[in-house]
Amino acid sequence: MNAQVTPFETKLLASARQTGTLLMELLSAEPRPQEITRPARLLDAMRHGALNGGKRLRPFLVVESAALFGGDSAAALRVGCALECLHSYSLVHDDLPAMDDDDLRRGQPTVHIAYDEATAILAGDSLLTYAFDIIADPETDLTDRAKTELVLALSRAAGIGGMAGGQAFDLAAEKQAPDEAGIITLQAMKTGALIRFACEAGTIIAGAPAADRDRMRRFGEIVGRAFQLADDLLDLTSDAATLGKAAGKDAARGKGTLVALKGQAWAEEELDRLVGEATALIAVYGDKAQTLTEAARFVANRKS
Amino acid sequence: MNAQVTPFETKLLASARQTGTLLMELLSAEPRPQEITRPARLLDAMRHGALNGGKRLRPFLVVESAALFGGDSAAALRVGCALECLHSYSLVHDDLPAMDDDDLRRGQPTVHIAYDEATAILAGDSLLTYAFDIIADPETDLTDRAKTELVLALSRAAGIGGMAGGQAFDLAAEKQAPDEAGIITLQAMKTGALIRFACEAGTIIAGAPAADRDRMRRFGEIVGRAFQLADDLLDLTSDAATLGKAAGKDAARGKGTLVALKGQAWAEEELDRLVGEATALIAVYGDKAQTLTEAARFVANRKS
Repeated sequence: MNAQVTPFETKLLASARQTGTLLMELLSAEPRPQEITRPARLLDAMRHGALNGGKRLRPFLVVESAALFGGDSAAALRVGCALECLHSYSLVHDDLPAMDDDDLRRGQPTVHIAYDEATAILAGDSLLTYAFDIIADPETDLTDRAKTELVLALSRAAGIGGMAGGQAFDLAAEKQAPDEAGIITLQAMKTGALIRFACEAGTIIAGAPAADRDRMRRFGEIVGRAFQLADDLLDLTSDAATLGKAAGKDAARGKGTLVALKGQAWAEEELDRLVGEATALIAVYGDKAQTLTEAARFVANRKS
Repeated sequence: MNAQVTPFETKLLASARQTGTLLMELLSAEPRPQEITRPARLLDAMRHGALNGGKRLRPFLVVESAALFGGDSAAALRVGCALECLHSYSLVHDDLPAMDDDDLRRGQPTVHIAYDEATAILAGDSLLTYAFDIIADPETDLTDRAKTELVLALSRAAGIGGMAGGQAFDLAAEKQAPDEAGIITLQAMKTGALIRFACEAGTIIAGAPAADRDRMRRFGEIVGRAFQLADDLLDLTSDAATLGKAAGKDAARGKGTLVALKGQAWAEEELDRLVGEATALIAVYGDKAQTLTEAARFVANRKS
């Protein structure tokens, strides 16, 4: 870990703490209206999956993109927590024996190791379901229009035409390595779609014009590509202690990545290019876009 | 199979066909706006899980309860399909090796047998996600208010405080048999919550007053209890050929049911009592409630 923490990292950490606090509250034992009761062990497993000290990058992007367009910050934090529940579900299910079969996640036992496989399946299902619950909840202070648009955009980003579909391509890639176009589609779906949603969500929360929504979708797409490229580089160059999970797994499984296909030098150059493209896109917002510009740079240069 | 089909059964069959046709259309290969592409094998697995010739009882209850309050029938059918996607996801995941480990469902191989375990997990995830997609979709002709209420009610019926939580209690019940109160809570969550939602959904679709919504929730709760009691009786008295799945499994697993606890005679009497209670509740709607009254009777007396 670096001794020096930048102002941007301080901001990211503060936001992650807020996200963690609200998630803890949302995952408390008290059943909400219309719920019958919350089984303790399943709730514990959901907490294990969602309260695991992640960087909370996706909620941060929701909050910062909402701030850029004057959206309500409390509502944005709640939508960020919804997105983090959905992201956590995908990790819990990806780690399952039938999927990536991982025992460790951020240095901790994965949910099916800490509990059992059936509980991990149900905890993932419940976290996914809860994402939509949080958005629709009356405590999320948004118009019904905004909520409907968020539910639609999130379900399309997460479902067969987005993240879950990308995961299906990823499984297929273990048997037959995809070509460059195939890898790009796979990654746009598997990791890109949720990051794109995070950046788009702020414009929905703020009720921003369609042109801004389109621009932020595009910004999110580029940040998503940078995120995945940095991930592939880290898998190649990092060790397990730094990553908090097994390193070099992609190569060991013969999974095609753009880094494997086009080399490390190309990837590093491409990362710079993507950061430049992302920065240029939101330069139209002037100084107000500074945090998101730094976020794009952080995503590309992160070391874990 | 009975040679005689009642007018009610004819109506149920016609509704099931409509549901199946729309589900097929919703699960077509063409990606929707905001989706990137739909991986063919995953889509096939979703279809296998959702287009399996079920009775489509839940969509029928949505459509009929909407009709009772003058709700739009096309919108009700779409909400019914959303609910059926969600119900199908629960079956796909329940059948997994780590859960109930069933190879057959309605006489067909389950999704993880016909495909593989990872694909079954993802197909379930995608069907669950798609339920919320269908509700929020602009093609579902409802107000944003109605959509938000449907998303909230459905996520609470399906998540940790509803169906998924009930499934967690069900897993625990294999190790330690619950008492009567425990069984009632488990069943209200595991199967009751979605049936309750089906009956409540019609009032949300139609924008009916709160008193009607409360009454239909209560009606749905009672129908849900009758459904489960009939299910437990069938598990005890039917054979696999009639059920299309293994019979006597609950008893073999030592799962406590109310039938096991209180006997077959009690259960048959209780079923009559529940049908009477359900009928009395909606008698206030007069002749218009006839189909729903027959539905309650059908649920209690069904033979498969």
